[in-house]
Amino acid sequence: RSMATAARSSLKIGMLPADGIGREVLPAARAAILALGSSVPKPEFIDLMAGFEYFTRSGTALPDETVDALKNECDCALFGAVSSPSKKVIGYSSPIVALRKKLDLYANIRPVKSVSVDPAVNPVVDLVVIRENTECLYVKQETQVVTENGKEARATRLITERASRRIGDMAFRTALTRPRKHVTIIHKSNVLSITDGLFRETVRSVPGLPEVNGRYGDITIAEQLVDSAVYRLFREPEIYDVMVAPNLYGDIISDAAAALVGSLGLVPSVNAGDSFVMGEPVHGSAPDIAGQNIANPLAAMRSAALMLRHLGYGEGADRIENAVDVVIREGKVLTPDLGGKSKTSEVVDEVVKRI
Amino acid sequence: RSMATAARSSLKIGMLPADGIGREVLPAARAAILALGSSVPKPEFIDLMAGFEYFTRSGTALPDETVDALKNECDCALFGAVSSPSKKVIGYSSPIVALRKKLDLYANIRPVKSVSVDPAVNPVVDLVVIRENTECLYVKQETQVVTENGKEARATRLITERASRRIGDMAFRTALTRPRKHVTIIHKSNVLSITDGLFRETVRSVPGLPEVNGRYGDITIAEQLVDSAVYRLFREPEIYDVMVAPNLYGDIISDAAAALVGSLGLVPSVNAGDSFVMGEPVHGSAPDIAGQNIANPLAAMRSAALMLRHLGYGEGADRIENAVDVVIREGKVLTPDLGGKSKTSEVVDEVVKRI
Ligand SMILES: CC(C)[C@H](C(=O)O)[C@@H](O)C(=O)O
Ligand SMILES: CC(C)[C@H](C(=O)O)[C@@H](O)C(=O)O
Repeated sequence: RSMATAARSSLKIGMLPADGIGREVLPAARAAILALGSSVPKPEFIDLMAGFEYFTRSGTALPDETVDALKNECDCALFGAVSSPSKKVIGYSSPIVALRKKLDLYANIRPVKSVSVDPAVNPVVDLVVIRENTECLYVKQETQVVTENGKEARATRLITERASRRIGDMAFRTALTRPRKHVTIIHKSNVLSITDGLFRETVRSVPGLPEVNGRYGDITIAEQLVDSAVYRLFREPEIYDVMVAPNLYGDIISDAAAALVGSLGLVPSVNAGDSFVMGEPVHGSAPDIAGQNIANPLAAMRSAALMLRHLGYGEGADRIENAVDVVIREGKVLTPDLGGKSKTSEVVDEVVKRI
Repeated sequence: RSMATAARSSLKIGMLPADGIGREVLPAARAAILALGSSVPKPEFIDLMAGFEYFTRSGTALPDETVDALKNECDCALFGAVSSPSKKVIGYSSPIVALRKKLDLYANIRPVKSVSVDPAVNPVVDLVVIRENTECLYVKQETQVVTENGKEARATRLITERASRRIGDMAFRTALTRPRKHVTIIHKSNVLSITDGLFRETVRSVPGLPEVNGRYGDITIAEQLVDSAVYRLFREPEIYDVMVAPNLYGDIISDAAAALVGSLGLVPSVNAGDSFVMGEPVHGSAPDIAGQNIANPLAAMRSAALMLRHLGYGEGADRIENAVDVVIREGKVLTPDLGGKSKTSEVVDEVVKRI
């Protein structure tokens, strides 16, 4: 599905590097887009503030101006990564969680694919996690009371039919674009019979087709409890094609899948809504390696590609993705997380040369 | 910690095979205990009803008589595995979740250890998951309303200071018995700042010692967000010793850890409270292989050993565990999940011979 509209004369991209290595990998995404030349409308990059470091300076992790600019001036955006406070900090709230909700970016799409010439070394992983991005425990409705037995805290987990239907719809539309057309619904309805029961049943009903021998038209559907889904992800990753999951399970499963392909530094995502898309590498801000020019830029570059594909610029997306794949396969210019010795900037140059 | 009291003349063990392969592996646990002879008080096995299959016959998954017998007649218990309904079933509720709460078995202790002569083949995994067993989303307080946008379901996630303190206490006491004495607290307080914030801070405060360079007396403490904990579990399992987690994260992490040691069919657990202990293999009821005499009995046999150790019969526990380790290391008599060709009963005989 694409948001391509009538020819744009320029592409306005909000840039939110946020914290840590987010600031080192967003320039890589920018370089990849610039290298495309006229395959895409002339990019205009709009620098925007967000993040934990910005919070410590300004008292807000996501200023209104950033949200306004994204809504009113930008065609799309790229987000870097955000640091988590190491102690509880009053008034701080994750800007990425807030952005997903404020822009109604209801689907977090995370393709995880191994690039390898030798399938015996790397298991063949080729799946996409379609993570619901606006509810579940991420509604952040939390309360705390003090009782005679001490503190008691409660959080609400929200699952709605509406959000489950649209994420299910995204999963099935995604499946139809893939050779295997297989959807696995992730839930824990053996414990959460009402919330995960609603998710499971709503997603199952999305294709609106009668089930015939486990097939719904062209699509096959399977289910897995989240715990055994993670187990099987490591034992037989090849069973998965499209995995659709409520927010928190999707968060965990996409990190688990990333471990299978060698590094979180390879896994891209987009946060997609009906009218806006924001690319975001799945990795975090990695404060331990920030500022050393050794962060892996490939997830951010691939996130730029995914964002472009979502906007209808498939040719540009292909060029970035193919260049990244070639650099991985050659294995000569890679960052330390992949066993290489190269700097972030050297990897960026190597990819850009091949775009 | 042990619950050994003055010499018992007999050991009354409630047996709850429940569903599927639970019925094939509990007899294996029984055979292991019987093989110990006078290392333990004379065992008396008391067969008790529970499970999904029992629910379909009787309308309840956990009859009052079972709970009463466990409370009043048994010294300890062994649980098999429970099947999950494949569609929503009115009135059904998981008996294992209910048992943990009714008997206040607040700690689910899941040691995961690779048995291998060649560490290059199997990464060396030697960790124990200490999972809080009574609250989090497992309180099963769920509601559903119908709005103009469709159904909306909510679940409550409960985290209390009291439960966090006692699970933290269990984690630190466990750490003190292990060479590395390292505790990793698993949470997601970057999103759930109040509930997971309470868990994290309460567990951290348990040792009651001042922190000096990351050490609390003999113990070191680390933290991981649940998503990156799963990622790192696969990338560098050797960083973990004791992992302490709220209920749902512990559920997922223990399955993930099981994938590292070759099979869920190897991983035992106990559900432990202050006055009762129930052994339980971590695997499920595996309806696909039930009734074929090919289920791996080793997790159940190890669960019997863990239960005995918890009751103060360390010598008996050692004998079962060593026999299991020898059979794994020899690699000749193993079930198909471990690449073997042997039947459940053959593996049981092989272990019993060596006890
Ligand atoms: C930073 C954090 C709030 C975020 C999440 O949990 O969604 C991250 O883990 C992710 O996967 O994008
Ligand atoms: C059967 C199910 C309710 C249970 C759980 O989630 O606790 C199981 O997965 C486990 O790990 O013991």
